[in-house]
Amino acid sequence: MKKRKIAIMGLGTVGGGAYDILTRNRDYILKTQGLDIEVKYILDRDVTPLEKRGIPVSLWCASADALAADPEVELVIETMGGVEPAKTFISKMLSAGKSVVTANKELLAKSWHELEPIAKAHGCGLYFEASCVGGVPVIRALGESFQGDKVQAIYGIINGTTNYILSKMSRDGCDYATALSDAQRLGYAEANPSSDVDGYDAAYKLSILASLAFHTCVPYGSIYREGISGVSARDIENAHELGYEIKLLAIGKRDGNNIEARVHPAFVARDHALSSVSGAFNAVYLQGDYVGNLMFYGAGAGAAPTGSAIVSDVVKALGGSPKYCDFDNNGKLDKNINLVGDFVSGYYIDISVEDKPGVLSRISTVLGENNVSIKAATQAPGDDGTANVVFLTHRAGEKSVMRSLESIGKLASVINVQSVIRVL
Amino acid sequence: MKKRKIAIMGLGTVGGGAYDILTRNRDYILKTQGLDIEVKYILDRDVTPLEKRGIPVSLWCASADALAADPEVELVIETMGGVEPAKTFISKMLSAGKSVVTANKELLAKSWHELEPIAKAHGCGLYFEASCVGGVPVIRALGESFQGDKVQAIYGIINGTTNYILSKMSRDGCDYATALSDAQRLGYAEANPSSDVDGYDAAYKLSILASLAFHTCVPYGSIYREGISGVSARDIENAHELGYEIKLLAIGKRDGNNIEARVHPAFVARDHALSSVSGAFNAVYLQGDYVGNLMFYGAGAGAAPTGSAIVSDVVKALGGSPKYCDFDNNGKLDKNINLVGDFVSGYYIDISVEDKPGVLSRISTVLGENNVSIKAATQAPGDDGTANVVFLTHRAGEKSVMRSLESIGKLASVINVQSVIRVL
Repeated sequence: MKKRKIAIMGLGTVGGGAYDILTRNRDYILKTQGLDIEVKYILDRDVTPLEKRGIPVSLWCASADALAADPEVELVIETMGGVEPAKTFISKMLSAGKSVVTANKELLAKSWHELEPIAKAHGCGLYFEASCVGGVPVIRALGESFQGDKVQAIYGIINGTTNYILSKMSRDGCDYATALSDAQRLGYAEANPSSDVDGYDAAYKLSILASLAFHTCVPYGSIYREGISGVSARDIENAHELGYEIKLLAIGKRDGNNIEARVHPAFVARDHALSSVSGAFNAVYLQGDYVGNLMFYGAGAGAAPTGSAIVSDVVKALGGSPKYCDFDNNGKLDKNINLVGDFVSGYYIDISVEDKPGVLSRISTVLGENNVSIKAATQAPGDDGTANVVFLTHRAGEKSVMRSLESIGKLASVINVQSVIRVL
Repeated sequence: MKKRKIAIMGLGTVGGGAYDILTRNRDYILKTQGLDIEVKYILDRDVTPLEKRGIPVSLWCASADALAADPEVELVIETMGGVEPAKTFISKMLSAGKSVVTANKELLAKSWHELEPIAKAHGCGLYFEASCVGGVPVIRALGESFQGDKVQAIYGIINGTTNYILSKMSRDGCDYATALSDAQRLGYAEANPSSDVDGYDAAYKLSILASLAFHTCVPYGSIYREGISGVSARDIENAHELGYEIKLLAIGKRDGNNIEARVHPAFVARDHALSSVSGAFNAVYLQGDYVGNLMFYGAGAGAAPTGSAIVSDVVKALGGSPKYCDFDNNGKLDKNINLVGDFVSGYYIDISVEDKPGVLSRISTVLGENNVSIKAATQAPGDDGTANVVFLTHRAGEKSVMRSLESIGKLASVINVQSVIRVL
C-alpha cells in the first residue's frame, strides 16, 4: 500500500487535533478507507509546538517553499488562521498542485474567489468542511446533497461563543457583561471578543454557507451584521415570558434573484428546533423546495470536532477528484442578484415611556400608520413614574419598523426605545 | 450539452415525487450541476399512473428487459417497493451496467450483499440515500463524512408512523388504539400497520445505517426488535412525570468487536435533543470518538423529501464514479463481531401489587440481589386494594433486569409487571 504523504501548516489547537486523529486512527482509516496517510512535515515558527505535544521534531519544517517543492507531499492542511501568511502559503501549495484542507473561515470568506481558480488551474482541490460548524458535515451537505432542491432559506446558530453567552444569560438571568466574563474565564471567548460578539465570525461563515446554498457569491461585506452586546437581561426575561429564546442567528434567504443575508440577535420561539440549541453547540436549519426543513446539529468548534472535519476532507481529497465553484464575478455579488435590505420579520420592541394616559395609544397609532401590526403588547410600571411598553409585532418590513421607531422616539411622553430584536 | 437519459421503475408516490423534481427543476439542475437529465422511460403495469399525473404516455415502458437493453439509459430509479419483482429488475439493470437509485429499504436490508457485487462487477453503482430518513442526507454523512472517526453509537427516530402515534399519545393523553386509528385516518399508517408499529421498518433502516456506521454488516435478522403496541397512556403519563418522552428508538453501538443493534420503545429525557423530534419528523443522533455528538433532523418520508433524496443520488451517480461496500461474509455478521444481547440500559418498570406492607421492600430486595439499583420509585394507589409501583433504575444489564422481573412476578402480593421500557 502506497503511503500518502501530507503536511500540516500551523500546530495550534485545531492542527494538533487533526494530527492526533490522523495518528491514533491511522490503521482504522487504512482499513475503512483504504488510505495510508502519513504526516511528513509540520510547518511552524519553531519546534516548540511539536515538543509540547510529544511529536518527533524530525517532522518540523521551517519553510513553506521547501514544503511546496517536495513532490512527495500531495496535500497540505492549513490551520494557522488569519489572512496572512496563510493566504500566501495556501497559494504556494495550490500552485504546486497540492490540495489544501483549511479551517480558515476568515480567509475563505475574504479570498475564496482568489484561491479557488488557483486550485482549478493546477488540478488540485481546496477543501473547507472545517471552516463552519466543527465536524458537522454541513459544507458537504450543501455541496453534495439535495442538488435537485432550490434552497430557500438557511438559519444558523454558527458561533459557539455568542451562543454560550446567550444561553448563560437565559439560564442564570445574568447580564451580558457577567456572561461574557464567564465565557472568557472558561476559554469560550477571547480577551478581545469582538470577532465573536460583534458577529464577524458568524458573517464569515454565513458568506460561505449562503454562497454554497444559493449557488452565487454572497460576499462577506454585503452581509448585514449586528452583535449581541446590546441584548439585556430584561430582553431575555421578556423573551421567556413571551415563549421565546434569544439567539444570534445567521440568516440567508433566496427568492428568485433576491437574496437576504444578515447576522443579528433574534427571538426564536420555544417550539422551534433551533431554540433548544444551547451552550457551545451549533446548528444549521434549512429549507428546500422539496426536501422541506432539515437541521444539522453538533459541536461547533474545538480541537476534536474541527480536527474530525479536517481529516474527513483529507480522506475525501486523497480518495477522489476535486470539484470547483465558479466565481465568475470576482467575488462580488452577481449583477443579476438583488441584495434585499428591506426584509420582513416579526419584531420585539421595548420602549420606556412616562406613565401617562394615552401613550400606548399614540405609539400604536404610529405603528399602524406604518403598516406594522401588533401581535401582543404589555405595559409594566418602571421606576419614578415611568413604564415599559413591550410590543411583539406581526411580520412587517424592516424599513417600516425603523421608520416607526424614529417617529415613536420623537413622541411626547416617550423616553427612549430600549431594545429592538427581530423575531424568527 | 449531452442529455443524460434515465428511467423510473414504479410511478407511485415516491417515483412521482422524483419525476416532479426532475421535470420542474430540470433547468436549475442543469445550471447548478451541469447535468441535463431527461426521464426517457417510466416502467409500470399500465399507463394509468402516467395518465393520472398528466405525464406523456409515450414515456411508458412495459418491460424491464426492453429497458435494460436500451444503451441510451444510463441510470434507473427503482421506486416499486417490496422485494420482488424489484430485486429481479434491479439485478437486470445493474447487470446491464446501469446505475440504480433506490428508496427500497426492505430490499436493501435483505439483499444489499447480493446487489452490491453485481454493481461492482459491472462498473455501475447502487445508491440509496432515499432508503432512510427522507431527504436528510444521513447515508451520505455516514459514508462520506467523519471518515477519521470511529462511530461509537447511533440513535435514530427513523419511523414516522410510530413517532406520529407516540407524539399524539404524548400530546393528547389518548391510548395507543385511538392514536393508531387517527394515524390511519390521516394516511400516516397503513390499514395493516405491522411493518411500522412492530418495528420492522425501523429495523430495516437500522441494518443499513449501522452497517455503514460500523463498517461491518449488521444483518437485519440480527436486530432485537420490539414494537410500540404495548405502550400505554399510563406509561406516557409516568414518563412525563419523570421528565421523559417515549420514542421508538433504533439503537446501534460498537465497542471494539462488540455490537449492539436494537429497536424498541425508550424513555428519552426531555433535555435530550431527540425528545423534541415529534410528529412525522425523523432524526439520527450519533457519537463519534472525535466529532462528538451530532444530530441530523428532517422530514422522514413523503413524496417530496424522498424524491429529493432520489434526485440527489441521480446527480451524484451521473456526476461521479461509484464506491462499493465490501460484503466479504455474504451478508452475515463478520466472524470477529460479537453481537451483544446483554446490553446495559436504564429501565422504567411499572408493577401492579396488592396494597400491603412490605411489598415495595420485597421487590427492592430482588432488584438489589440482581445488581439492579433504583434511581427513583413511586407508589400510587390503584383500584380495589391494589397499588402501582413505578421504578426508574440506574443503568443495569438487560439480563439482570429480566431475571429480576421473573422473580418479582412470582412474589406474594405482586399481581403483575405491567410495563418495562428502556431508558436512553
